[in-house]
Amino acid sequence: MKKAVVLLSGGLDSATVLAIARSQGYECYCLSFDYHQRHVAELDASRRVAAALGAAEHRVFQLDLSAFGGSALTDTSIAVPQSPTEGIPVTYVPARNTIMLSLALAWAEVLGSRDIFIGVNAVDYSGYPDCRKEYIEAFQRMANLATKAGVEGDTVEIHTPLIDLSKAEIIRQGTALGVDYSLTVSCYQADAEGHACGQCDSCRLRHEGFVAAGLADPTRMI
Amino acid sequence: MKKAVVLLSGGLDSATVLAIARSQGYECYCLSFDYHQRHVAELDASRRVAAALGAAEHRVFQLDLSAFGGSALTDTSIAVPQSPTEGIPVTYVPARNTIMLSLALAWAEVLGSRDIFIGVNAVDYSGYPDCRKEYIEAFQRMANLATKAGVEGDTVEIHTPLIDLSKAEIIRQGTALGVDYSLTVSCYQADAEGHACGQCDSCRLRHEGFVAAGLADPTRMI
Repeated sequence: MKKAVVLLSGGLDSATVLAIARSQGYECYCLSFDYHQRHVAELDASRRVAAALGAAEHRVFQLDLSAFGGSALTDTSIAVPQSPTEGIPVTYVPARNTIMLSLALAWAEVLGSRDIFIGVNAVDYSGYPDCRKEYIEAFQRMANLATKAGVEGDTVEIHTPLIDLSKAEIIRQGTALGVDYSLTVSCYQADAEGHACGQCDSCRLRHEGFVAAGLADPTRMI
Repeated sequence: MKKAVVLLSGGLDSATVLAIARSQGYECYCLSFDYHQRHVAELDASRRVAAALGAAEHRVFQLDLSAFGGSALTDTSIAVPQSPTEGIPVTYVPARNTIMLSLALAWAEVLGSRDIFIGVNAVDYSGYPDCRKEYIEAFQRMANLATKAGVEGDTVEIHTPLIDLSKAEIIRQGTALGVDYSLTVSCYQADAEGHACGQCDSCRLRHEGFVAAGLADPTRMI
């Protein structure tokens, strides 16, 4: 069975990615990060999702990005916007996907895996630079120069099965694969029990997705 | 004064890089990692070097790469070779430079810096894939797609002032800039006080560098 490292936040997208990787026959090693995010309840969600979808292993890596701050998600003195904003929003965490993919790359190399899955999406998304296709392609190219695999002629692949899907399409695909979205937490300022605010960008995109998919939204609200 | 993030291990190369960045007029924000490396004495060295060379700030970031292992530097059950080996040696730490550059990228973005310095070298080195020029170029390209700076038309630059230098040339250049190499620790298995084994690849490259430079080697041995 081929091994894959799956970045799992505990949100809707990465839960769907895990279900897709499992449906493709991968043995999934899930990696989550306690990066001192505001919405730490997503880590409980990641544990529920990993268990429900049959991860081979799930690790929560300690990574204190609040040491750098610079984002509403890692610096509690910066408020989470309650309505859409222009440009790259303050919820953007500097270099977050690069850091997380780099650590996934390390684990993959140790596991002998050549496949990393990440739930980035460039359709119904917040405009983060590190969710775009050209970024992922550049990361993959770099990864193949960075590691033993690349030197030995093997290829590391960064799988982004959601990148071209709308939120409604993601939800439909996950539902077909048996994902229970009531286990997931997307809200940037979820309370300790994972209840959502219903106001932030992430809540808005998630709710609009369920409406567009014609499915009931199981999100538990504050 | 332009700000730069300087990756500082506490070894000979990164101390030289810090001196070069300072000589180019950068205000230097030094970043070291407690990655549960075998030679943790290098962190004491990094503090001495940062202070001696006038760093604006020095941070030691906690990053437990022993959670993944896969290297003689992060897994004490794998011995450090006492003589040169074929291919990529077991002291290679999977994705280490990628992880460290990613975290430097995050800090640079928060500081408003566009300049990152790293002491990689592709002449007198151990054959690690993530020390090569093509890898650094690919990282820089990725970094400019990953971040706000890139989207806003600004450019992040990864500076590698040592990449084409021999170890002797590095030592001569650092000496001319006033680097006190007795403060640095290069040995992969230095003891708690930073005394070197004199046998590992890193000790060998360092000592040969001093000999070739015609300078006294100030390394304190076990």
